[in-house]
Amino acid sequence: METPVVKGLRADAWRNRARLLAVAEDVFASRGPSASTEDIAVAAGVGIGTVFRHFPTKEALLEAVFVERLQRLIDDARQLSSAPDAGQAFFIFFRSVLDQAHSKSAIADALAHAGIDLKDSMAGVKEDLNAGLNALLVRAQRVGAVRDDIGIAELLALLVGAARAVDHAAGNTDVEDRTLEVILDGLRPHSRRSTRG
Amino acid sequence: METPVVKGLRADAWRNRARLLAVAEDVFASRGPSASTEDIAVAAGVGIGTVFRHFPTKEALLEAVFVERLQRLIDDARQLSSAPDAGQAFFIFFRSVLDQAHSKSAIADALAHAGIDLKDSMAGVKEDLNAGLNALLVRAQRVGAVRDDIGIAELLALLVGAARAVDHAAGNTDVEDRTLEVILDGLRPHSRRSTRG
Repeated sequence: METPVVKGLRADAWRNRARLLAVAEDVFASRGPSASTEDIAVAAGVGIGTVFRHFPTKEALLEAVFVERLQRLIDDARQLSSAPDAGQAFFIFFRSVLDQAHSKSAIADALAHAGIDLKDSMAGVKEDLNAGLNALLVRAQRVGAVRDDIGIAELLALLVGAARAVDHAAGNTDVEDRTLEVILDGLRPHSRRSTRG
Repeated sequence: METPVVKGLRADAWRNRARLLAVAEDVFASRGPSASTEDIAVAAGVGIGTVFRHFPTKEALLEAVFVERLQRLIDDARQLSSAPDAGQAFFIFFRSVLDQAHSKSAIADALAHAGIDLKDSMAGVKEDLNAGLNALLVRAQRVGAVRDDIGIAELLALLVGAARAVDHAAGNTDVEDRTLEVILDGLRPHSRRSTRG
């Protein structure tokens, strides 16, 4: 994973920031986005002042956690884009996006609720994520692992739809798995479908 | 289409109610759920008092339009359940649910926003819709037109996910069509997939 460059931040300050983000992600994941900045300071073993120095508001912290997760997905996409099995790499990434989708959308909802516009902070990140996805898609299509009549627009729509479908089946892992398998099978070209059906 | 029985309503009063519902559906569809009760009275050529006699609040009217649409889907499912081609009937119904999903969810959002709990008025309707869906699914599976490793839970998750996917692609019919085709292909058993991919 690459070290993000946060302008004007010294190395130790950056390490503190990264650590706070990691703790915040855990706390938000276990207690939901309603967890307070104080909860995060306690969990990180620092004073509340330290948290506020890095993240002036809880919304700034939520937003940073969100962008950090997307950054990690982009790093995953970059690594997978040189994996030997292009088809496997594509499907691994599709699943890993979905694995993150649930808690990510909870955070996104909390931000939307707080009136924070993600568009500005996300513009560059979203572009990088789409580029990573597209590279994986094209490679998988080239080796015949994914049908060749779809592009990035269809893939994004399917990811969003699959996340919603899995969310609807929430609580029943068997239903989640079978639902996802239908969509993944639909992405495979005719000759390559799983034999589960 | 069956005539819904609205308790204690005379035939002419029921006809007026049905006409108001049809007009309200058109008005909500063209102007969005923010259209007012006055707009609907004007479009129907009746006084506002007539609208209020049938629907005391705008929310009651929105809810009735919503339930009426689901009723129509249930009627469609019943008719299709005796269609000669069980596979075609299933896929026609899947698409017709999606065709309605966009405006339906706009109305559902407006109701949720107004704090109306759809659960009570929907309980019976939802059960009927699920029964209709299930009948179409089982019949299509029996003739080998739909994979047999999914049940009603997966189908509902896929419908909700497909609606979200199509919504995400909104404005680009080609993307919508190709996205939906992926999901429909995933529903087909191995030997029956379309040859588009």
